[in-house]
Amino acid sequence: MKPQNDQSSIELFSYSTPNSIKPMILLEELGLAYTLTGVNIKKGEQKTAEFLALNPNGKVPVLRAGGQVITESAAIMVFLAEKYQRFIPTAPADRVQMFEWLFFHASALGPSFGQAGFFKKMAPEKLPIAIDRFDAEAKRTLRVLDQQLAKREFLAGEYSIADMVNFGWIWRREFAEVTLDDLPNVQCWYDWMGQRPAVKIAIERAMALAS
Amino acid sequence: MKPQNDQSSIELFSYSTPNSIKPMILLEELGLAYTLTGVNIKKGEQKTAEFLALNPNGKVPVLRAGGQVITESAAIMVFLAEKYQRFIPTAPADRVQMFEWLFFHASALGPSFGQAGFFKKMAPEKLPIAIDRFDAEAKRTLRVLDQQLAKREFLAGEYSIADMVNFGWIWRREFAEVTLDDLPNVQCWYDWMGQRPAVKIAIERAMALAS
Repeated sequence: MKPQNDQSSIELFSYSTPNSIKPMILLEELGLAYTLTGVNIKKGEQKTAEFLALNPNGKVPVLRAGGQVITESAAIMVFLAEKYQRFIPTAPADRVQMFEWLFFHASALGPSFGQAGFFKKMAPEKLPIAIDRFDAEAKRTLRVLDQQLAKREFLAGEYSIADMVNFGWIWRREFAEVTLDDLPNVQCWYDWMGQRPAVKIAIERAMALAS
Repeated sequence: MKPQNDQSSIELFSYSTPNSIKPMILLEELGLAYTLTGVNIKKGEQKTAEFLALNPNGKVPVLRAGGQVITESAAIMVFLAEKYQRFIPTAPADRVQMFEWLFFHASALGPSFGQAGFFKKMAPEKLPIAIDRFDAEAKRTLRVLDQQLAKREFLAGEYSIADMVNFGWIWRREFAEVTLDDLPNVQCWYDWMGQRPAVKIAIERAMALAS
């Protein structure tokens, strides 16, 4: 563990989004003190010149720790979990599974939820082809997750950053207008995570940024 | 390095896709012998019961190495690079950057190229809102990549799996109908990679699967 003065230099640029909640959960689980700086994406603050200097990809969250700037929520998770050696499986086979579920979330579950929400709620016209495509894909990814959670209590052996990253969009599933109906294993896993004090505090702090 | 009899048990389920080429490049760069099993996604072979038993997410590539099955192309890359300790940066700051670009590709560049191609070429109707959305996003991600490659020769310090994963979709950019015009740094990096013998062999073997 790093000394207090290093820990206290952790700053997270964040908002109440599916991707922002992930490192907030991990920081709370690790018991680290951190400064939370709100970036109001509804006002486009992630596209200002000042923020783009921090993350040229123009997305929250961004972590600044001891002078190092880290973008991409899942890369932040890997960085923190490796640094503190917690919430990252030690068994080699579980470690591989952890990466599988990190990339599953980044490439499939996350994008499908995001696009489903966009085409259902925000597009200037209702486009059934696009809505159906992303709605079906979001639901399919949830079924894949449910299959895995029928076999294992957590996605990668033990409670890890693989669970936290997939939790983010499922917590915000109302945006994509999908439910956990008929997904008993996802529901059980989601409820278990939702009861954790660290998760509750992270959600509270994330929602406060948007209020 | 593992003994020859372990290496020879490597099997890759693959096709001529942007995601399949990534582990093929890495396997060729590592000089490993491997069996290539074609999965014709044009015939839907990735959705057969047999293949879904291997990867419930129904996607290529899948690696089977010494009895272990690994899905998600980027997880395969991390697994092989860590196992052989090559094409993965050793400097801690570069390692963090490697993960940033792995997740950038998985969550942003890859999905936007894939959807741009779908809505331009395969959707049953031309939907300008969807086409413009994904075309703009694909081009934006290329500009982000170009900015990084203006500062550094490779994405994460040295030639690594971060370069290989981003190469995949750029190699298949004709599907998304985007070009490298006005992206001199991406063009230079892409050309350098394209001249590597390992990359040439990987492309040749991938294209042979589709012929």
